[in-house]
Amino acid sequence: MLMEEAKRNNPHPLFKAVAEQEGVPVETIMKGVASGRMVVPANVNHKDIDPRAIGEGLRVKINANIGTSKDFIDVDEELRKADVAVKYGADAVMDLSTGGEINKIRKTIIDHVRVPIGTVPIYQAGLEKALSPNGAVVDLTSDDLFNAIRNHALDGVDFITVHCGITKQTVKRLCENPRTTDVVSRGGSFLTAWILQNEQENPLYAEFDYLLEICKEYEMTLSLGDGMRPGGIADSTDHAQIEELMTLGELVKRSRAANVQAMVEGPGHIPVHQIEANVHLQKSLCDGAPFYVLGPLVTDIAPGYDHIVGAIGGTIAAQAGADFLCYVTPAEHLSLPTIEDVRDGVIASKIAAHAVDLIRGIDLDKDHQMDVARRDRDWDKMYALALDPEKAKERHEERLSSEDDVCSMCGELCAIKITEEYLRPKKDE
Amino acid sequence: MLMEEAKRNNPHPLFKAVAEQEGVPVETIMKGVASGRMVVPANVNHKDIDPRAIGEGLRVKINANIGTSKDFIDVDEELRKADVAVKYGADAVMDLSTGGEINKIRKTIIDHVRVPIGTVPIYQAGLEKALSPNGAVVDLTSDDLFNAIRNHALDGVDFITVHCGITKQTVKRLCENPRTTDVVSRGGSFLTAWILQNEQENPLYAEFDYLLEICKEYEMTLSLGDGMRPGGIADSTDHAQIEELMTLGELVKRSRAANVQAMVEGPGHIPVHQIEANVHLQKSLCDGAPFYVLGPLVTDIAPGYDHIVGAIGGTIAAQAGADFLCYVTPAEHLSLPTIEDVRDGVIASKIAAHAVDLIRGIDLDKDHQMDVARRDRDWDKMYALALDPEKAKERHEERLSSEDDVCSMCGELCAIKITEEYLRPKKDE
Repeated sequence: MLMEEAKRNNPHPLFKAVAEQEGVPVETIMKGVASGRMVVPANVNHKDIDPRAIGEGLRVKINANIGTSKDFIDVDEELRKADVAVKYGADAVMDLSTGGEINKIRKTIIDHVRVPIGTVPIYQAGLEKALSPNGAVVDLTSDDLFNAIRNHALDGVDFITVHCGITKQTVKRLCENPRTTDVVSRGGSFLTAWILQNEQENPLYAEFDYLLEICKEYEMTLSLGDGMRPGGIADSTDHAQIEELMTLGELVKRSRAANVQAMVEGPGHIPVHQIEANVHLQKSLCDGAPFYVLGPLVTDIAPGYDHIVGAIGGTIAAQAGADFLCYVTPAEHLSLPTIEDVRDGVIASKIAAHAVDLIRGIDLDKDHQMDVARRDRDWDKMYALALDPEKAKERHEERLSSEDDVCSMCGELCAIKITEEYLRPKKDE
Repeated sequence: MLMEEAKRNNPHPLFKAVAEQEGVPVETIMKGVASGRMVVPANVNHKDIDPRAIGEGLRVKINANIGTSKDFIDVDEELRKADVAVKYGADAVMDLSTGGEINKIRKTIIDHVRVPIGTVPIYQAGLEKALSPNGAVVDLTSDDLFNAIRNHALDGVDFITVHCGITKQTVKRLCENPRTTDVVSRGGSFLTAWILQNEQENPLYAEFDYLLEICKEYEMTLSLGDGMRPGGIADSTDHAQIEELMTLGELVKRSRAANVQAMVEGPGHIPVHQIEANVHLQKSLCDGAPFYVLGPLVTDIAPGYDHIVGAIGGTIAAQAGADFLCYVTPAEHLSLPTIEDVRDGVIASKIAAHAVDLIRGIDLDKDHQMDVARRDRDWDKMYALALDPEKAKERHEERLSSEDDVCSMCGELCAIKITEEYLRPKKDE
């Protein structure tokens, strides 16, 4: 187990690789993984993984969700989404496929993608029930759930979202504190319905030790899901959400004791003034475990532009200490994303992550080099330094200026050129 | 003068109109305008104006820049940009035209647009010099500048950007504290060059009382420009910027004493952790004058996506107290924006403004209504409530689900439907 290696101060090759990526001593990684404040998700069966470390003091990481749905099943398109995601900076890819031959699709994606891969096994387990004659997700058995998890582990999935914090007590809190949108997490809705229907405890909570056993066998990292994340601004930071978070904090402790790496997922829809509090609460209740936030989305009224809404929330969350941002695409709340949506979503999240990295002194030089290129009107250098070189070049060249080296906004009234002409000689005097 | 009316507690029809828009008593507006903490830009010659109040405690406002450049001169396109801007929520439009028959274009825009109109008269004055044989912007005379300003005032411009804070002292600070990109404001670059070349004081500062006279004659609001705004992350919050801001604070006092409404412009490129300090500094040095920020842009490396970068900075600035956000389009740093860029820029700024409005309890109901529509899977209602109804409808319908009322992301695994099926009966028990 990587956590054991870290505790033994053994510089595993994966630790060396991520230390080099981050530009930190390998000791920093070992200390972080040993304490549980960093995770390095890397299933023993994910061959040729290009690993990432996620957590305190490191670059802010971003995740892109891909995957088929019942209505859109095209494996090649999903592979292209994964390629686009990684090209523009995704540090992890989650395969959320729920359409077609899910097992085959997952294996194809794992073989194809080198960054860490995440999944949500309950989707597949629930779907199989829902598709069976007269079946429903509430018919899921403990065996169904754990078999799905074991299959994903065996295939090489590096981290799984498991909604272990949806307990009878969490559901009680939800019922006692009504929301507008109740449960918007898919896995969370399955388990809430299951608990209400079966009047039993969530198997992922009741049999958490068994879950830990599977994770140990394959070095699979837990991403403790927030099934009670709010689905609207007015529902944010409520009793059900915090009840679940407290449970997740306890499960983080149990994971660490078993040498299983664990991170914690967070909201969701939160107004800007509550984001910092959400991050501090998670860090405190979960003893500094890496925080993986879904957005957050700071308003509900911008469908079609939720990648922007998520980039705003992601920046504020990362500044407060969130470690891992799940991207949101322009298709959020509307449809299954296209390849172009994946590009837009990844770039928006990358902007959020980078804006926070640079205030920590990470990659600050990239911005400075861009400023130098702008001062020098060196367009090729500007493109090369841009998060999306093709887009920058395309947008500049489609409306060129008739002047040589300036853009069509200011033309000969370019502030930089005028300043250069009159200020530089004075500077040189 | 509106400020005099406010001081006399006279509920001018413009005050009543904006009070109704904001849902506040007219006394709040009068108190705000009298103290200079709010402005209601409304030139006596701007017929049929749909006014706005900008400042403390009000809805966060957004501005869209339009206008021709030397390379793209199409008045109809600029009018369509203005229409698109207002449709998606712009509270003001600045005409920055520098190509074609500028006087005629400006008049056409003022006749066409009902929200407050702003301009930067020095662009036109500088351009005329630059285009004259052997001419250059440094040949500008005081008369050239004030004649341009008077013409804009006469035409009905509601607020003008004037870089009165670029003084000999500010330029000295710049020379003593070198930057990577020196001056990126167009007006700022003209005046910096002018001061260096002519070794005289900036006429807009030296003859500020004359400027106030013109403003009084036409009820034109001053937008005190930040000619020294940083053009890159590494240049932010430096000596030249703060020197200029201190001067602007003094000019705010002189404006108020003359009953001329004034707001103050701010950066620019600022890293996220410095934004709040910039807002507090402006509010303190300028005695609570409305703060009009350009972005801010929180990283330099995302050309093609600067509307997202600006929405992040704008949200953080507005949360800290900025009152008025100048939009940034995806074309920023690359070319003159298209109509589609204007739409993207306005929506991004509107998201930022609204995200902050709702934490002040303003328009919170819009988000709640959207949550109800989502819970009820009422797609027409969702479209109607969206900031961009057409985009939301288009994106949902281009990839419909084969199921009835859900989307193609989750299909029959819709969390909201599952929750409804199993939770609602329990709630009703």
